[in-house]
Amino acid sequence: MIYELYYWPTIQGRGEFVRLLLEEVGAHYVDVARGSGKGAGVGALMRFLQGRDIRRPPFAPPFLKAGRLVIGQTANILQFLGSRHGLVPKDQAGRLWTHELQLTIADFVAEIHDTHHPVSSSLYYEDQKREARRRADDFLKSRAPKFLGYFERVLARNSRSDRYLVGAKLTSVDLSLFQVIAGLSYAFPLAMAKAARSYRGLFALHARVQERPRIAAYLASRRRLPFNQEGIFRHYAELDR
Amino acid sequence: MIYELYYWPTIQGRGEFVRLLLEEVGAHYVDVARGSGKGAGVGALMRFLQGRDIRRPPFAPPFLKAGRLVIGQTANILQFLGSRHGLVPKDQAGRLWTHELQLTIADFVAEIHDTHHPVSSSLYYEDQKREARRRADDFLKSRAPKFLGYFERVLARNSRSDRYLVGAKLTSVDLSLFQVIAGLSYAFPLAMAKAARSYRGLFALHARVQERPRIAAYLASRRRLPFNQEGIFRHYAELDR
Repeated sequence: MIYELYYWPTIQGRGEFVRLLLEEVGAHYVDVARGSGKGAGVGALMRFLQGRDIRRPPFAPPFLKAGRLVIGQTANILQFLGSRHGLVPKDQAGRLWTHELQLTIADFVAEIHDTHHPVSSSLYYEDQKREARRRADDFLKSRAPKFLGYFERVLARNSRSDRYLVGAKLTSVDLSLFQVIAGLSYAFPLAMAKAARSYRGLFALHARVQERPRIAAYLASRRRLPFNQEGIFRHYAELDR
Repeated sequence: MIYELYYWPTIQGRGEFVRLLLEEVGAHYVDVARGSGKGAGVGALMRFLQGRDIRRPPFAPPFLKAGRLVIGQTANILQFLGSRHGLVPKDQAGRLWTHELQLTIADFVAEIHDTHHPVSSSLYYEDQKREARRRADDFLKSRAPKFLGYFERVLARNSRSDRYLVGAKLTSVDLSLFQVIAGLSYAFPLAMAKAARSYRGLFALHARVQERPRIAAYLASRRRLPFNQEGIFRHYAELDR
């Protein structure tokens, strides 16, 4: 099957969590909105969001077309793909735990986004700069340590391995946490340089995922969009400390 | 089986979405932190969050103990309980769609919370009042209409029924949306009085859920905590318009 991923064509954003999984398992997929021609481009994406004949419209990208299924919400897509491609444990407790962690990552990502857009996504950063400074300050002081400390603990307490967050094998959660560390390091280079000493496990996990052959090939390819000032992870020097 | 729900004892919060489902299906459950004595109270909850011997610690309440399983993250709990008690469709497409909607409700709830805490959850409302005003203003002007309009559309496009969001029967999503409408009506009575005209489907859904025998009994009982100024939905007159 050839999957169709629908996501904004110029940013990593939430779509990147799906791309990383698809790349790691070597899945065949089309990044629809980045293509051109009939049935591709942003128009094809908008049709799902706005078409009056779409019976089950996604709220927002990313969404994935897998045969006749159309699946929205990042963590939902990862749960679906993960269990299909062996990146989620088979036992019920393991599946629930993996999804729980994936949802906690989603919460973390939403808070990271709000550091530069604490008032409104529809306003420019420049129009909420003062609020962003307060929010980013709180984020670096309390929220980021809370989330990073949590995942460091989860990693340390995994009784089956010290290389992965869940069980003895790579799961979708390891890929997503790689992306979070990569993104935070882009957005807050000073704060993260300090954090590296406190969260050694997570930074080592980041390095290991980065070296996986398919991930390394993906990161070196043109399919990997660079971080920029439009996505979730943005670098504003005044928000870093 | 007797479920154990772990959530803060004095607020509805995210735990309420789980309580509503447990009540609707007539499950036996203990609201652990609201109890007293050995193994109950807030101490019992904190043990899961902070105990060094907890192999898979939840990030935050609510979490549910079901036999040997401990399940965290509201949408994850609802997915688990929903499929166990017939409040989630059996077919794969229906299951994925229900969870997608549940995750969109979770996003909505996070944005509702941030109207009064746009800078930091650890600061008082009074210390972020100016920012809250801007954020609540944007919320009522663009975000709430976007979410409510979306769910109204989902309801209208459900080809199997005009009484439920998914398929021909009640699902966990209907219960959660009831709670969102109830909470928003408490927090923003003026704005929601106007909204009632635009989202008739959702308000009718709210009324229908409210009248379900077990939900009605629950709402009339002491088990239902009143809305207050500590939870997700808070009423600050200056944020309503």
